[in-house]
Amino acid sequence: MVPQMTQMGERARNAARQLAAASALTRDRAVRLIADALTERGEALLEANARDMDAARANGMSDALLDRLELTAGRLIAIADGVRQVAALDDPLGAGEVKTRPNGLIVMRKSVPLGVVAFIYEGRPNVTADAAALCVKSGNAVILRGSSGAINSNIAIVSVIRECLIQAGLPEDCVQLIEDTTRESTETLMRMTGYVDALIPRGGAGLIRAVVENSKVPVIETGIGICHLYVDSAANLDSAVEICYNAKTSRPSVCNAIEQLIVHSDVAETFLPMVKRRLDEKHVELRGDAAVRAILPDALPATEEDYRTEFLDYILAVKCVNSVDAAIAHINATGSGHSEAIVTRDYGNAQRFLNEVDAAAVYVNASTRFTDGFEFGLGAEIGISTQKLHARGPMGLRELTSYKFVVYGDGHVRE
Amino acid sequence: MVPQMTQMGERARNAARQLAAASALTRDRAVRLIADALTERGEALLEANARDMDAARANGMSDALLDRLELTAGRLIAIADGVRQVAALDDPLGAGEVKTRPNGLIVMRKSVPLGVVAFIYEGRPNVTADAAALCVKSGNAVILRGSSGAINSNIAIVSVIRECLIQAGLPEDCVQLIEDTTRESTETLMRMTGYVDALIPRGGAGLIRAVVENSKVPVIETGIGICHLYVDSAANLDSAVEICYNAKTSRPSVCNAIEQLIVHSDVAETFLPMVKRRLDEKHVELRGDAAVRAILPDALPATEEDYRTEFLDYILAVKCVNSVDAAIAHINATGSGHSEAIVTRDYGNAQRFLNEVDAAAVYVNASTRFTDGFEFGLGAEIGISTQKLHARGPMGLRELTSYKFVVYGDGHVRE
Repeated sequence: MVPQMTQMGERARNAARQLAAASALTRDRAVRLIADALTERGEALLEANARDMDAARANGMSDALLDRLELTAGRLIAIADGVRQVAALDDPLGAGEVKTRPNGLIVMRKSVPLGVVAFIYEGRPNVTADAAALCVKSGNAVILRGSSGAINSNIAIVSVIRECLIQAGLPEDCVQLIEDTTRESTETLMRMTGYVDALIPRGGAGLIRAVVENSKVPVIETGIGICHLYVDSAANLDSAVEICYNAKTSRPSVCNAIEQLIVHSDVAETFLPMVKRRLDEKHVELRGDAAVRAILPDALPATEEDYRTEFLDYILAVKCVNSVDAAIAHINATGSGHSEAIVTRDYGNAQRFLNEVDAAAVYVNASTRFTDGFEFGLGAEIGISTQKLHARGPMGLRELTSYKFVVYGDGHVRE
Repeated sequence: MVPQMTQMGERARNAARQLAAASALTRDRAVRLIADALTERGEALLEANARDMDAARANGMSDALLDRLELTAGRLIAIADGVRQVAALDDPLGAGEVKTRPNGLIVMRKSVPLGVVAFIYEGRPNVTADAAALCVKSGNAVILRGSSGAINSNIAIVSVIRECLIQAGLPEDCVQLIEDTTRESTETLMRMTGYVDALIPRGGAGLIRAVVENSKVPVIETGIGICHLYVDSAANLDSAVEICYNAKTSRPSVCNAIEQLIVHSDVAETFLPMVKRRLDEKHVELRGDAAVRAILPDALPATEEDYRTEFLDYILAVKCVNSVDAAIAHINATGSGHSEAIVTRDYGNAQRFLNEVDAAAVYVNASTRFTDGFEFGLGAEIGISTQKLHARGPMGLRELTSYKFVVYGDGHVRE
């Protein structure tokens, strides 16, 4: 193991102990100080970000990605607002249940921090601030490993955050950034058993697969979204058109956007031309099976691979089925367990879909785009889990906690 | 991957779908049928067990291990009673919370089965019946991988269970046993991503470490217990003697027995001879540091390794410390995060210990032997988790569930 990362792990563990003992008042104060500093220290942050932007332009980064990387004064205000909202959420720690056993033993099950969270992420610098705020609020020390493209922005943001931690009377090592953005640092993190309690990867399919397959540290898998919309024979077709348009085009690069449209053959002839007209407004490329192409001759032929791909783009794989059973089977076989929706007026089909589709979020008559911590009323999220252990769906403060049993006795021994 | 295990995985997945859709009435009926059959079909089970016992004797198995392996008519009744108690527990499925969002979207968070659980275990045949009952009750299909020594007993028990499943109208593949007890079957299970939702190893330290380090399937770590009892300077020493005696000797082979006794130096001179007298009744071997041996010259010298060992035997490592801080630091450094206890009359020291010791269960003035699903009032357990993700401490029905978000809309799209 890289020695300086071992030291980082030890510092994180010590900081975690102190942070876990801090009251919610202190943790919230630290988070609010961070929010304030993100705008007050904006100039330094924008200057660091400008260096990332210059490097990205020199590397020929696309306009879309440049836009994601860029910080502006307005964006800093929005990030600070997000951090302030985290501070305002209910404290997730120290809550639980208590039982008094027949022998008088008092058994309390109470929420506690996970300890040290490692977070490997790609993408925008705002994630750095969000993740730090969520971890500090939930009493966890965090080791951040961001992308090389945002390294200057991340260093600047973390430096501001660490000053705020000290100001709040907390150890600065509650938030640490790994500045080495080579593959080696990711690999080292995955082996830091004893230092890291949970590893959360957030990014592309390749990153997440590599972490899930190789980590010796417990992992919470996030974010791959191969989501489907199924339009049932009993659907309100006008509503189905709007839900499909929203789920595909409102933000195609995110994990809760749909990648596949499944249509019952009874309504395909009417519905497919309707939805195509609406999707044409955003030039969505349709890829269909034979039945779809018989109705929409312009659609490209879909390959098997298309039905297992997270396009994250204005592309939609379309398929006809003859029953809700076939739709459910196809979704369970090709989905990533993220978000799945049915449009129908039929009570039985709705209930079957909700019960039998195996995904973090299942919808009837709504867009999959709602799978989000804020939209579900859970507050900010550190990612969306597609696994079943520990957390499923949007992961917020509660999902950053564990629990312990605290037992009060009076000389009790077991018979 | 071994092809027949892939098929086993597919059968488990299909069975899990049907089991998840079954009502609690049906699941409970299946579990009660299993309980009845375990005694009604006792003759066949005892006959199969006799073959395991013969083989074990021929292999020179110790009397203690032979006793663990043996089934008797009385033990079958006890196993059946345990299974019946599982049937009587509250249904863990379909429960949760609901919120209606400002836009009218109804967001329900509801418990669902994990899906397919794989369980690798050593030891007694009763675990086979307990695990099957817990999984069926919680709607999970289970793939069991027991030890070679109990293979005939396990085959007979699982055969009875599968008949009961059919009788209850459930797929027999809800419970499958891997008859191949080579290392290869364990290794294959660890790679069955897509078939297995959670892998639970229960057994010796070697097995658990191998699974945690190599599994690509999400793991719930169980059972290594390096537990401590700390006797504070402000302890009631008579009570401390009884708690130590109970925690060490009531059943030394289990994970919630203590392996280390930590004594504040202010009371060591009085306390150590007292506790030695009591432990001598069971011929407990004491291994101490220099301070301990100055008071108890008969104690063997303890090595560094002794303070990191799960003896599971009548051996106790003993250490003197000068403060509660030193005790907490030693416990956090050498414990396995299972169960830790303080004996004290001092309020502040008790609170500090409970808050700062990082373990699944922390006790004041009680024996660590209470860490157990039944003792905590949680019902039967499939193991005791020492990790922080998903489950910590005794894992019963609730810990065998995940959840999903079920969202009811009326044409909702996201702005």
